[in-house]
Amino acid sequence: MMTNRRLETCFSPALFESECHTDSIIVIIDVLRASSSICTAFANGAQSIIPVSEVSEAKEYKSRGFLVAAERDGYVLDFADFGNSPFNFTREKVEGKTIVYSTTNGTGLLNLTSGSFQTIVGSFLNISSLTKWLLAQDRNVLLMCAGWKNRFNIEDTICAGSIAEKLLNSGSFTTICDSTYAAIDLWSLAKPDITGYIEKAAQRTRLRDKKLDDCIVFCLTPDYTDKIPFMKNGVLIGIV
Amino acid sequence: MMTNRRLETCFSPALFESECHTDSIIVIIDVLRASSSICTAFANGAQSIIPVSEVSEAKEYKSRGFLVAAERDGYVLDFADFGNSPFNFTREKVEGKTIVYSTTNGTGLLNLTSGSFQTIVGSFLNISSLTKWLLAQDRNVLLMCAGWKNRFNIEDTICAGSIAEKLLNSGSFTTICDSTYAAIDLWSLAKPDITGYIEKAAQRTRLRDKKLDDCIVFCLTPDYTDKIPFMKNGVLIGIV
Repeated sequence: MMTNRRLETCFSPALFESECHTDSIIVIIDVLRASSSICTAFANGAQSIIPVSEVSEAKEYKSRGFLVAAERDGYVLDFADFGNSPFNFTREKVEGKTIVYSTTNGTGLLNLTSGSFQTIVGSFLNISSLTKWLLAQDRNVLLMCAGWKNRFNIEDTICAGSIAEKLLNSGSFTTICDSTYAAIDLWSLAKPDITGYIEKAAQRTRLRDKKLDDCIVFCLTPDYTDKIPFMKNGVLIGIV
Repeated sequence: MMTNRRLETCFSPALFESECHTDSIIVIIDVLRASSSICTAFANGAQSIIPVSEVSEAKEYKSRGFLVAAERDGYVLDFADFGNSPFNFTREKVEGKTIVYSTTNGTGLLNLTSGSFQTIVGSFLNISSLTKWLLAQDRNVLLMCAGWKNRFNIEDTICAGSIAEKLLNSGSFTTICDSTYAAIDLWSLAKPDITGYIEKAAQRTRLRDKKLDDCIVFCLTPDYTDKIPFMKNGVLIGIV
């Protein structure tokens, strides 16, 4: 077992250095709401999720009979079956199904990291299962915050910080990455009251303004599922 | 006086959205060491500083008889008069002089932000003077962390956090920028012992490894000078 694995954190897709991570496991974190929704879908028995970046691709899949979840800036696109709230991905709707999924930020990122050793999806909802699984792999890890339109965001950062804290405390990882230390420090401030801490996040305000914030407490709930969605040949499937 | 000015923070030149800041004052922060050295140079009577991005440009200026400060990855370039430590910019060397200056990160950034209303240089060394001056302008403000090779860094972030805290507390600024809130929170953790907090920063380790860390305590010292370097026609001059 490799005991000196490298742990890094990236605050924005625009800061992603793909050449540094061809051998790493990349954890995509988009807490509000794509990675939470993806974890929920697999918890509720979805068979696979096809992430697509462009609206036109999502539309094309819809015309071929696929179940399509698609939003831009929080709103469900008119041709889609449903949007980006984890509450949309009920067992009734998704069990045994393949879902085509396109969001403002999260899904494009899943394709951006295709040159890594492996890309998985993380959120508070699967955080313990995910962390345990990462500890059992002999791989460097990059925690990749989806952010919002390439900007840093608080909610993905504290989720990354929570994962990073556990990985570093295990003694199997080291880091010289300032983003990782900052994420851990912000998580230390957020931990006593995550929902309260998130109040200042821009995405918190955006979702409230659009009356899409009913899912926030759920998205900040640790360990709703032990499923770990991961990319295989451009498609997400769930393990564990 | 505009009382609802926008305050934002950018963690990396790679995240800079120039189109959002044509009307803003941009504060370039590169605590270890470019912005600290620039503030020191003006404190010691430098007349102006010409920031250049490329080594070849710096060399060209040298051949024309200019005083040249130039480093890459911390090391003084062989043709240069001196490097990037603030201790190089003594009154004896710089008083009344124009200095051509090229560093790994900081100086390229000064040119990147040329489309803003105004670009100024900030560090702990001029933090109170700078903050007071910003409060007196009727402008939105972007705190631009130089980072390291486009990566987030801790030392620039806590300096930005310290400035941001003062600006927001004044009541003249508002923000919906997660980076600003994160910077303030990290500053709140660093404030009781800035030197101790900086220990985990990658640049702290890099400077120690290269035996270039003699200037760190100095670079973290508030209010060594009241000079505020600012860009005019591609050249830095000092005000106040």
